[in-house]
Amino acid sequence: MRETPVHPTFRDAVIELVHGAGGKASRRLIEGLFLPLLTNPVLAHLDDAAILPINGLRLAVTTDAFVVKPLRFPGGSIGELAINGTVNDLAVSGARPVGLSAAFIVEAGLPSEVLRAETEALAHAARRAGVAIIAGDTKVVEHGKADGLYIVTTGIGIVDPRAELGAHRVRPGDRILVSGPIGDHGITVLLARGELDLEADLVSDTRPLTPFVEALLEVAGPGLHWMRDPTRGGVATALNELARDAHVAIILTEEAIPIRDAVRGACELLGLDPLYIANEGQLLAVVHPAWADAALTALRQMPGGELAACIGEVCEEPAGVVIVTTQYGGQRVIDMLVGDPLPRIC
Amino acid sequence: MRETPVHPTFRDAVIELVHGAGGKASRRLIEGLFLPLLTNPVLAHLDDAAILPINGLRLAVTTDAFVVKPLRFPGGSIGELAINGTVNDLAVSGARPVGLSAAFIVEAGLPSEVLRAETEALAHAARRAGVAIIAGDTKVVEHGKADGLYIVTTGIGIVDPRAELGAHRVRPGDRILVSGPIGDHGITVLLARGELDLEADLVSDTRPLTPFVEALLEVAGPGLHWMRDPTRGGVATALNELARDAHVAIILTEEAIPIRDAVRGACELLGLDPLYIANEGQLLAVVHPAWADAALTALRQMPGGELAACIGEVCEEPAGVVIVTTQYGGQRVIDMLVGDPLPRIC
Repeated sequence: MRETPVHPTFRDAVIELVHGAGGKASRRLIEGLFLPLLTNPVLAHLDDAAILPINGLRLAVTTDAFVVKPLRFPGGSIGELAINGTVNDLAVSGARPVGLSAAFIVEAGLPSEVLRAETEALAHAARRAGVAIIAGDTKVVEHGKADGLYIVTTGIGIVDPRAELGAHRVRPGDRILVSGPIGDHGITVLLARGELDLEADLVSDTRPLTPFVEALLEVAGPGLHWMRDPTRGGVATALNELARDAHVAIILTEEAIPIRDAVRGACELLGLDPLYIANEGQLLAVVHPAWADAALTALRQMPGGELAACIGEVCEEPAGVVIVTTQYGGQRVIDMLVGDPLPRIC
Repeated sequence: MRETPVHPTFRDAVIELVHGAGGKASRRLIEGLFLPLLTNPVLAHLDDAAILPINGLRLAVTTDAFVVKPLRFPGGSIGELAINGTVNDLAVSGARPVGLSAAFIVEAGLPSEVLRAETEALAHAARRAGVAIIAGDTKVVEHGKADGLYIVTTGIGIVDPRAELGAHRVRPGDRILVSGPIGDHGITVLLARGELDLEADLVSDTRPLTPFVEALLEVAGPGLHWMRDPTRGGVATALNELARDAHVAIILTEEAIPIRDAVRGACELLGLDPLYIANEGQLLAVVHPAWADAALTALRQMPGGELAACIGEVCEEPAGVVIVTTQYGGQRVIDMLVGDPLPRIC
């Protein structure tokens, strides 16, 4: 265990979109405002799920607010996202979901068919992920508020006894795996807003990651050190948090990172880096080198995991930094952004 | 166990405020749209908290979205409500909270001081209720959305082994207790909106009910049959749901129902019935007659419970109906309303 880090002070006068975008501004809000007031040993870990020891079990708890705009996009919708996002936070904590709660904040005037369609999407995604909705609440707010529909889900799971995950387990030499191509979700939602004169043959990657995690625990349980689903802020933000928390360097190999041409093309046109774009159906896993090949093979055998790749390695120095090496031998530091280039993508 | 009830079909074309107000329209939305799609044995009970059997324990889970307007009102604020509301749903399920999650949906442009003040209120209420915030999420939406701040909390608790609660345990002859005066919260929030030319010396009753429940379990555990905190829809709605679910009649004695003069006065002026007004710090308990006196004495000895009262009795007929008898021998049926006279009160 390390000593408690010093929290930055939050001095911004007003909350803006950037504070919800998952980058440095979000981190400052969380660490500078929320944590000092709400502090307790469980919350302070800031992992994807909190772990509560109860009667010899490790109960995992995670909550997520979904405010995606538009409500529907190619490959998914808010209802599906609300299940998969929370199931995935449990999954990358090594937990199998035992129940989810769902709270709906509905804008007055929303056509009932929209609410029904999203409830169906939610129900379908819950069945696919093998989890029951055990509690719910509905509030309705005036016309003009809530963008039609917000959904907040909270997931409760039980951590697999084989899972021993955390930044404290990450060591130099560990390999960094990704389960598939990155950036699909963020770019899909961005294009679905119709504000850009761009089209692409692209769908969101929203999916439950539980089967991937199950496969990794099966073949690489003792060598599985850390997992994360890189949503808001993308792969770059998730790995920066790891580099910081584990006091290690993360060295990525650019040409090993799987990125679809459509994502690469859209990013080039828009001046975005796919490493910062949100995913909703990919996981990052840090694996001991002795287990890395088996883990990668297992991922590639899963439906949807065919393009899994080893994208880099954990090194000792420079601690706290993420670096990408290009195929011509160049290197660039991948810092955390202040905000996210794309707000409201989940 | 009874057979599954037939669900009404939800045919309204559009969602309106009334569907979130806790009355018949809310019930139709839940039973006609959500339940048929999300159905599972735990959710179908529609109690304040879902009960999951885990490793010999009964885990209670409840979720609540808070969209109160205004954010602050005499005696409380959204941050405090977000803790107490969820803690109370656990409490009336006989559960002691072990952890709460909190998701914030913040409107861009909200002064940071408002968010800080509500986080402080939340932290303070959590300490008072003896519960830790173990997981959180923050999203920021554009200016004009979200009324400044919505908070969704999900509570996880462990049901006290002494608690055996449910409509199925309610029998004719049981007494109906209320922990204190009703309507304070709803009328306070209504007046705090400043839209009416009315003032009253009144504060919200928001408080954690865990100590009340602890006292009741201690002195009347085996005789404690059912509990509810009558929030949206008030005492009338909570008891109508009980009458329906337990197939019993509820006969209330009007002059026994504790109501402050300020609430009674405001209700008379506005044409409202205090029985339908929301409370955030009162509980209804249905107790076997042999334990009723001890239970009432225990409530009255609690700080805040001095005005607890026995307000009625469970009878066999007319099943499914709530009746109030007046001091002159008159009777009136207290039906469920379609909506709530006061939306957005929690």
